[in-house]
Amino acid sequence: MTAPLLTEIDHVAIAVNDIEAAIAYYADTFGATVDHREKVESDGVEEALLKVADSYIQLLTPTNDGSPVAKYLASKGEGLHHVGYRVADCAEALQSVKDHGGRVIDEAPRPGSRGTTVAFIHPKGGFGTLIELVQE
Amino acid sequence: MTAPLLTEIDHVAIAVNDIEAAIAYYADTFGATVDHREKVESDGVEEALLKVADSYIQLLTPTNDGSPVAKYLASKGEGLHHVGYRVADCAEALQSVKDHGGRVIDEAPRPGSRGTTVAFIHPKGGFGTLIELVQE
Repeated sequence: MTAPLLTEIDHVAIAVNDIEAAIAYYADTFGATVDHREKVESDGVEEALLKVADSYIQLLTPTNDGSPVAKYLASKGEGLHHVGYRVADCAEALQSVKDHGGRVIDEAPRPGSRGTTVAFIHPKGGFGTLIELVQE
Repeated sequence: MTAPLLTEIDHVAIAVNDIEAAIAYYADTFGATVDHREKVESDGVEEALLKVADSYIQLLTPTNDGSPVAKYLASKGEGLHHVGYRVADCAEALQSVKDHGGRVIDEAPRPGSRGTTVAFIHPKGGFGTLIELVQE
């Protein structure tokens, strides 16, 4: 039996074409406001994090046409892109994925936004769900 | 300015073909175990809730071929299906969606699983994201 590794839903990530319009929608409709905003050039995305309890709604938009999120928007349109789970130790959780036959995108943990350490797990072999492991 | 209405990410819902295999994946890889399991015949789904802090991973599988989740799986395959946000008052949050021009699926709150009161908001007009409002 594996010990519980997921300590929180860190974020649900939503790919959008117009991040300003999406921010306005969540603020106007739900009173959810921006807690943090960052461009992650290495991933080709700009993100806005809206705080919900100890979790975030992560609005994601591409910063260039080659960004994976740009390709996602072009093929699937706006919507749920991935889910981030908070973990105490990203390397440990990533190793557990490998040990249980999962397919990883990041072979080793790497820097994420807002000073986190992250690794992505491939949706193939994970029931179609792109998962990000997030260590604060 | 709308007061904050979303008090927690209640759940991320993942549509799967084989719920037993998905439960085994989350248990083996992440040590996430089933907290609640229920068939919601009115929605044509069986769900398994895996607890992560105060939120859930909701694994969803159809109970019949006419189920919206069956149609989703047939057209899009397995993956992220919707996100549920916990609210103090489902009727109030649903009204805010209507007041701000959102398109609703449920005109009024209705019973959900595990004794909750819920309402779904249409992804059209909501940046492609199917949202469920959940009042415990």
